[in-house]
Amino acid sequence: MKEVSLNGKMREQIPKGFKASAVSAGLKKNGNPDLALIYSERTAAAAGVFTRNLVKAAPVLLSMEHIQGGKARAIIANAGNANACTGLQGMEDARTTAKLISETLEIPLEEILVASTGVIGKPLEMHLISNSVAPLVGSLRSNGFEDASRAIMTTDSFPKLARFEGNAGGHPYTILGMAKGAGMIMPNMATMLSFVLTDISMDAEMLREALQGATEKTFNRTIVDGDTSTNDTVFALANGMAGNDPLSQEGRSEFRRGLTGVLDALARMIAKDGEGATKFVTVELLGALTAEDALAGVRTLGSSLLVKTALYGRDPNWGRIMAALGRAGIALKESATDIWIDDVQIVKDGIGCGTEAEKMAAERMENDAFMVRIDMHLGPFAEKIYTCDLSHEYVSINADYRS
Amino acid sequence: MKEVSLNGKMREQIPKGFKASAVSAGLKKNGNPDLALIYSERTAAAAGVFTRNLVKAAPVLLSMEHIQGGKARAIIANAGNANACTGLQGMEDARTTAKLISETLEIPLEEILVASTGVIGKPLEMHLISNSVAPLVGSLRSNGFEDASRAIMTTDSFPKLARFEGNAGGHPYTILGMAKGAGMIMPNMATMLSFVLTDISMDAEMLREALQGATEKTFNRTIVDGDTSTNDTVFALANGMAGNDPLSQEGRSEFRRGLTGVLDALARMIAKDGEGATKFVTVELLGALTAEDALAGVRTLGSSLLVKTALYGRDPNWGRIMAALGRAGIALKESATDIWIDDVQIVKDGIGCGTEAEKMAAERMENDAFMVRIDMHLGPFAEKIYTCDLSHEYVSINADYRS
Repeated sequence: MKEVSLNGKMREQIPKGFKASAVSAGLKKNGNPDLALIYSERTAAAAGVFTRNLVKAAPVLLSMEHIQGGKARAIIANAGNANACTGLQGMEDARTTAKLISETLEIPLEEILVASTGVIGKPLEMHLISNSVAPLVGSLRSNGFEDASRAIMTTDSFPKLARFEGNAGGHPYTILGMAKGAGMIMPNMATMLSFVLTDISMDAEMLREALQGATEKTFNRTIVDGDTSTNDTVFALANGMAGNDPLSQEGRSEFRRGLTGVLDALARMIAKDGEGATKFVTVELLGALTAEDALAGVRTLGSSLLVKTALYGRDPNWGRIMAALGRAGIALKESATDIWIDDVQIVKDGIGCGTEAEKMAAERMENDAFMVRIDMHLGPFAEKIYTCDLSHEYVSINADYRS
Repeated sequence: MKEVSLNGKMREQIPKGFKASAVSAGLKKNGNPDLALIYSERTAAAAGVFTRNLVKAAPVLLSMEHIQGGKARAIIANAGNANACTGLQGMEDARTTAKLISETLEIPLEEILVASTGVIGKPLEMHLISNSVAPLVGSLRSNGFEDASRAIMTTDSFPKLARFEGNAGGHPYTILGMAKGAGMIMPNMATMLSFVLTDISMDAEMLREALQGATEKTFNRTIVDGDTSTNDTVFALANGMAGNDPLSQEGRSEFRRGLTGVLDALARMIAKDGEGATKFVTVELLGALTAEDALAGVRTLGSSLLVKTALYGRDPNWGRIMAALGRAGIALKESATDIWIDDVQIVKDGIGCGTEAEKMAAERMENDAFMVRIDMHLGPFAEKIYTCDLSHEYVSINADYRS
């Protein structure tokens, strides 16, 4: 699994029958590309996972409706404006956006999926979108995926692409995923959009199950700031152009593994690129009494401001880790708890291992990426989460975002 | 209700029979006073409320034990070291601290309460404490409360004192409260210590009920950063020296009101003095479907990083408020939701009121204190919470705290 190289050979690496394009519609103040289109030559089986936030953006509501049919031909996505909290007008605008694509590409309205990300509560500037549909459709191309992945960026600092190549009964297939993330990142899910395209042949139901499972293990294990967006959307499209027969048990397993790998790579990129992040941190909790405890534990650690500012300060302040565990509402025996930073143990049986150990741990924390590992020694359950530190830059980005 | 003036007249304003003192023991690196003693001439009825964090500091565990008898004569409190996550040695140290005071003041060990705040996971430097007991006891005085309130400060920028004067059947009495707060502040409870002293006569059971009720409505409605400390402690001592008869129904009510008023004033001071805070914000949620929803709603709003950074940026970014409500796990009807900043309505029926309204709201947000008010129009339940913004300074304080 690796990020698609950005300098060519995209042609060979993409799933057959997909094209993409991007244009600058003017929704982003800085003039960067902000409107992306993804298109499949054939109708694809389609699945989606959406934010669990009760306040759902108009494109989420519309796409939830459209995806019920289990098929799609195109995804239109914009950055710069979330089209959330925009009421009936927002729904109208999302529908009009889909309609414009539907008419230009001559495909059924219900086979268009829509996604938006950006500022909440601002009406979508529809003239900017309608003016851009022709150039967007006109520039659809097999090597347009990197441009599309850049167009959906908001506060992201780099585009996020990942790829898997598999083989279904002698038929090679590709899974290509792109994502944007950065802020409002917290399980269920994040201000994140992710679009996964594959030429494997499978039905929508199987695709949906695989997507839900993979999302749960990856994007829903990623925390930047603990807020959950109104717009989170993951779409998966499988257009069948790899020409494989119905998948065997083994073939399904490989696909699930591949899909999870792609989403895992994207999830790591999202945490690495967390707003203002200087550290990519994997928090691993072992020995929890129950599966629920393990998950609640890593989520509490990954969203604790005091833990995250300590990560920023390269401070192996394990007291804050213990304190966060203690308030996580999970079973905990203080005197049975061990903590490591990478390979350096800093807490044994609930007690600090001393200044020397902390100095070594602080050295590990100078690295761009490291692991915080806790063993609670209470049971067999483990979980991990991807997170990042909380920096001055995070505050700057979010205090000034709209200004 | 007002903060005790810091320049005298303390003599008249304090509850009868109480003394206090403070010294610099050397636990704070900057040499500021860090050890405080509070003493009652007579044995007082005593009650305590403690952190719900499962990881409880040694002084919390010891004081929970001591307070079961329902009486106390002295409180010894230190800042600079939390004596938390310090294992059996920590318990031994807390007990030794109490013992030193017990022997010097010649009062039973079980009537000494102990509290600590500061860095977690560092053994308490006991020689610094034992060296300081004599000067601490020797300087006990009726006007020592301001000094004591300064000695328990950690990252606080000002000492916190509040007072109430009541009358119990012709007998005047005083309630004097002090607190420290600033960081790790989140309901249940906060890195906060608060000591409340009164000369009213009442039994421990009645005092405990009043203290729990008042704490729930005040300190447990205060959020700085969403973390909950290992050391949170509220003590109340009532030494009976006002000489009142058993309280009437009316007398009890007045006491409860007075106590709640004192804690409310201290809770506001804690939020105002939140680490790095530039804004004191009251979040009020009206029209919730259930009482639980109202509380979950204000707590989610008060701990959302995106909301708090918007408060810092003087940005009436109501989309983040809607998004936080939407993920709070409460009943919500987007199209029924109204939002105000002070008197300026920025959202009506789930839709933004426009640029002009937001400009006026941004002006209100230039003030040091303002209110965010939401009406969900779903039911009769309301809650409020005190919070503050999230600033660059918060990150600086917490990234560098131990270095």
